[in-house]
Amino acid sequence: MLVNETQLRVQYYETDQMGVVHHSNYIRYFEIGRTDLMRRMGLCYKNLEDSGTVMPITNVEVRYLYPAYYDDIICIKSFIKELPKARIVFNYEIYNAQGKLLVDGSTTLAFVNKETGRPQRAPEKMIQTLSEHLK
Amino acid sequence: MLVNETQLRVQYYETDQMGVVHHSNYIRYFEIGRTDLMRRMGLCYKNLEDSGTVMPITNVEVRYLYPAYYDDIICIKSFIKELPKARIVFNYEIYNAQGKLLVDGSTTLAFVNKETGRPQRAPEKMIQTLSEHLK
Amino acid sequence: MLVNETQLRVQYYETDQMGVVHHSNYIRYFEIGRTDLMRRMGLCYKNLEDSGTVMPITNVEVRYLYPAYYDDIICIKSFIKELPKARIVFNYEIYNAQGKLLVDGSTTLAFVNKETGRPQRAPEKMIQTLSEHLK
Amino acid sequence: MLVNETQLRVQYYETDQMGVVHHSNYIRYFEIGRTDLMRRMGLCYKNLEDSGTVMPITNVEVRYLYPAYYDDIICIKSFIKELPKARIVFNYEIYNAQGKLLVDGSTTLAFVNKETGRPQRAPEKMIQTLSEHLK
Repeated sequence: MLVNETQLRVQYYETDQMGVVHHSNYIRYFEIGRTDLMRRMGLCYKNLEDSGTVMPITNVEVRYLYPAYYDDIICIKSFIKELPKARIVFNYEIYNAQGKLLVDGSTTLAFVNKETGRPQRAPEKMIQTLSEHLK
Repeated sequence: MLVNETQLRVQYYETDQMGVVHHSNYIRYFEIGRTDLMRRMGLCYKNLEDSGTVMPITNVEVRYLYPAYYDDIICIKSFIKELPKARIVFNYEIYNAQGKLLVDGSTTLAFVNKETGRPQRAPEKMIQTLSEHLK
Repeated sequence: MLVNETQLRVQYYETDQMGVVHHSNYIRYFEIGRTDLMRRMGLCYKNLEDSGTVMPITNVEVRYLYPAYYDDIICIKSFIKELPKARIVFNYEIYNAQGKLLVDGSTTLAFVNKETGRPQRAPEKMIQTLSEHLK
Repeated sequence: MLVNETQLRVQYYETDQMGVVHHSNYIRYFEIGRTDLMRRMGLCYKNLEDSGTVMPITNVEVRYLYPAYYDDIICIKSFIKELPKARIVFNYEIYNAQGKLLVDGSTTLAFVNKETGRPQRAPEKMIQTLSEHLK
């Protein structure tokens, strides 16, 4: 399994009047964690797009256990468990500074040719890199 | 089953550089649909909060089939299928103006006492109102 | 002077833990008002982009007098006072349902050729349409 | 003059279909820079709120010179030039990694008693701390 941790601080504009982070923002935290995991593997998502592949989201699942609060430092753990085929699944766990699990979830992404808009398989370079890391 | 439809127009700030609505915004569209459904039933969420009950999200599931584009008029169908107990489930389907299903999903919400922060059962008024509509 | 009014309801995800609409969202309300004003004049911004002109923002000014609250119905008044040359200025006033002025401001936008990325003058059709309305 | 620099990476959800950071997000970058400047001075905004003072925004001005792009590392320079009285002004300059000035602007904030909602002067501790730094 491939794991990466990303730390960030909760911003004021991410809170809502319940006094906690609005639930929609965790989807954005997932994106931050996923991009960071890919970069650490040498698979910068920007380069992927520049080379003609976009990765639209096809599924999101989130489970909210405890809220994150303004100014908290949170840790996003991002995981890849399996080699991608037509799609790739990322798993996430978000912890606060006390190590309490606040939110977990997953996102599934497809691979689409940027020009044609048609689905494609995962780029060869990604499969190779993931193969090495998932050994 | 209880159904409500809400129409809205996709804004520029909701798009991303893939040229489509960013996936996190559908969670916000769900919120718009849910609030509208509750209002139509006479269960204004603002009044609920004012009377001491908040409804935090505990689970979100989204399936993305086709993208929505800038300036599209989309229709959010929001459903309640079952009477709430400790939690309530809302289901959603988002269509474009051509009637194509773009996204569907669900959110589960808990009932929490605003003062104590402790879980409670669904407010009596909500159960009564839903009972009538779900007959 | 050319004026248009757009009504919308404040959403929960637009609030922050101060219990009011987060100040960054008024910039988005301005965008909603501006797009609506243009459409009413027959100058749909989407069509403009499709025909090769984008209008990036060059300046924003906002004055915050009173907060908008969750579930408020607010009215965005959008104005154009002068014919555009290299740039166009939109003015805005945002009122609550009691007619209280909450926020005012302005945005200045340039005209840029989508292909070349270079500044251009306002499209002829826009100047003609605005000329008629500003008489 | 008091200066602080904050670095961050532009996220995908901050872009729009023009392929650049949506203009509303720079207001949020300003907030990130401002919070960071205050923390470095020992004036954590969260503590300020906890001790009964909130700082609502009263004015925003932004000038957009060049766009920031997805995955860019940007640097937010935040400045305080003068001691606050009833209000405090923060100035900002946002640079890309090549040192190009992309955006500048300012925000003015008031001091409000959280309980009464009434304006107050800047907290004594803030004035003292700023006095030392602005010498």
